[in-house]
Amino acid sequence: ALAMPAIAQTAPTIKWRLTSGFPKSLDTIYGGAEVLAKRVKELTGGKFQIQVFAAGELVPGGPAALDAVQAGTVECCHTCSYYSFGKEPTFAIGSALPFGMDCRQANAWFYYGNGQKLMDEFFSNYGLQSFPGGNTGTQMGGWYRKELTSLDDIKGLKFRVAGIAGKVWAKLGAVPQQIPGGDIYPSLEKGTIDAAEWVGPYDDEKLGFYKVAKNYYYPGWWEPGLVIHFFVAKKEWDKLPAEYKAAFEAAAFEANVTMMAEYDHKNPAALSRLLSSGVKLRRFSNEIMQAAQKASQEVYAEESAKSPAFKKISEDYFKYAKVQNAWFSIAEASMAQFLHGAK
Amino acid sequence: ALAMPAIAQTAPTIKWRLTSGFPKSLDTIYGGAEVLAKRVKELTGGKFQIQVFAAGELVPGGPAALDAVQAGTVECCHTCSYYSFGKEPTFAIGSALPFGMDCRQANAWFYYGNGQKLMDEFFSNYGLQSFPGGNTGTQMGGWYRKELTSLDDIKGLKFRVAGIAGKVWAKLGAVPQQIPGGDIYPSLEKGTIDAAEWVGPYDDEKLGFYKVAKNYYYPGWWEPGLVIHFFVAKKEWDKLPAEYKAAFEAAAFEANVTMMAEYDHKNPAALSRLLSSGVKLRRFSNEIMQAAQKASQEVYAEESAKSPAFKKISEDYFKYAKVQNAWFSIAEASMAQFLHGAK
Repeated sequence: ALAMPAIAQTAPTIKWRLTSGFPKSLDTIYGGAEVLAKRVKELTGGKFQIQVFAAGELVPGGPAALDAVQAGTVECCHTCSYYSFGKEPTFAIGSALPFGMDCRQANAWFYYGNGQKLMDEFFSNYGLQSFPGGNTGTQMGGWYRKELTSLDDIKGLKFRVAGIAGKVWAKLGAVPQQIPGGDIYPSLEKGTIDAAEWVGPYDDEKLGFYKVAKNYYYPGWWEPGLVIHFFVAKKEWDKLPAEYKAAFEAAAFEANVTMMAEYDHKNPAALSRLLSSGVKLRRFSNEIMQAAQKASQEVYAEESAKSPAFKKISEDYFKYAKVQNAWFSIAEASMAQFLHGAK
Repeated sequence: ALAMPAIAQTAPTIKWRLTSGFPKSLDTIYGGAEVLAKRVKELTGGKFQIQVFAAGELVPGGPAALDAVQAGTVECCHTCSYYSFGKEPTFAIGSALPFGMDCRQANAWFYYGNGQKLMDEFFSNYGLQSFPGGNTGTQMGGWYRKELTSLDDIKGLKFRVAGIAGKVWAKLGAVPQQIPGGDIYPSLEKGTIDAAEWVGPYDDEKLGFYKVAKNYYYPGWWEPGLVIHFFVAKKEWDKLPAEYKAAFEAAAFEANVTMMAEYDHKNPAALSRLLSSGVKLRRFSNEIMQAAQKASQEVYAEESAKSPAFKKISEDYFKYAKVQNAWFSIAEASMAQFLHGAK
């Protein structure tokens, strides 16, 4: 009896399409959607099928993935809400805020703090329901043709960076450039731009920036722990049988924890390879970090003045972050400093 | 059609019993088993039922939970393998090693490094299959009636600590005491012991140690990221239909990521309350940390000489930890130090 299929013929067959905000070449972040689709299929005896499309196959990457779910082109997507920052600043909070929370802290806020509730209130205005479904960890700060020896070196810096991070960099004097992934390398090579940021060693290595801009800065203070979400059209979600909802939810938790682990597994070796090829690892100076934190707070005040949702949710977010940081400064930080003191 | 139950009458009803290594009063760590059982039930339309028993209900806590799975008393348990350290030192590696990996690093090792493969090779000798199913984060270092001003203060210290950590403390001159949870408070109050360690602020607060030993040390260098596992009797696992295996696996991922988030959510407020009640937060001195790390390496050499499995797996573990620490020292550590520099 135990060998018989658990899901019988009476269960409905449901086919969804998921568009990823990412190309297949970024296999770790793109792979989160494959993890979800595979697990959901297994959990439902093959009855709930989610077909995953890479960015560009059905719809482009960037904000288009979220737009496609809202428009009903696809039932769901796997992407970062901050790509839709231009539509409403609150979209940034779902993904990452400069000097905001890291991976574990963001999980705590979403799962046990007010994060899920507040963000879903906001996302419901767009007909969306959200599920945290991945994290990159603290990102690197990008590739710079020239060393940044002081704040003055940022004046006029043509830096490929988007969204709320771009607004902060602009306050420091940079000129943010929004350039699609494929065009970054030639722009950096030609010197059309001075610098570009992407994710971390494993993803950055593939794009080859190290060949044309040797200064690799850290930390990516504008993305201390980028959250990737699954977004589902609320009206499609509401039609699912309870077991299929449970399958999607459980698989999203799995994608969340495994993406972080996969990045943590892959990044160290990639960084070693980059360093062997002559990359110069450089830490942003305290002067730059402090100025950037101050500029971030100015941006938050400006966005809060324009958007009540941003004000409400970012205040909860940073109140939570402050409490988290106080706790993380004790056992976690002292252990980490002993084992791998920051370089 | 969409409202009909996804799991039909033909799916087998399977009832398992799970014994937790923990009492219900430690609701976060005990709760991991409830998270799993609830999700598995939902995913199988109520057909795969796992009844959770707290430590002491069916079998005692400590190593008894794992023994009960091996003996066939229950199909599975949720506990720390290091409780079985006395049987074979390799059991410690599944949970935590002094100066070993933190939560994220351990996840990377288990899910993408050799961790799962190596530990399951070892656990299979006991008829067990393992699934990471929770983490406490870096623990606190415990409660001390007197301040530790130097290594000399450790000589003769009667410290409630078990397993491989106890061996390390013994090398520093302490006298490890193995005392059941309920007996720790009166022993500490009477001065029968000088100090006791447990988990972190949220759990420690419940046991009331702060009333009788005011010095709260950190970090708990012997548990930088305690892994809690689900252990299943291999012969029961092999009988499960594929969908039920998938349900158990997915639910274990969920329990893993949510337990860490729940601890991160609850610990900060508990620490604040403890500090308000007059607790003195104290960091282990570098002298003590360095001596403890050296003592740990001596213990690893001794255990490796006795157990080929410990030698093989701990070498892989620390090789992986070294690479992880090199990577974590860059973006993660510099971001963390800026936001919450260790106190």
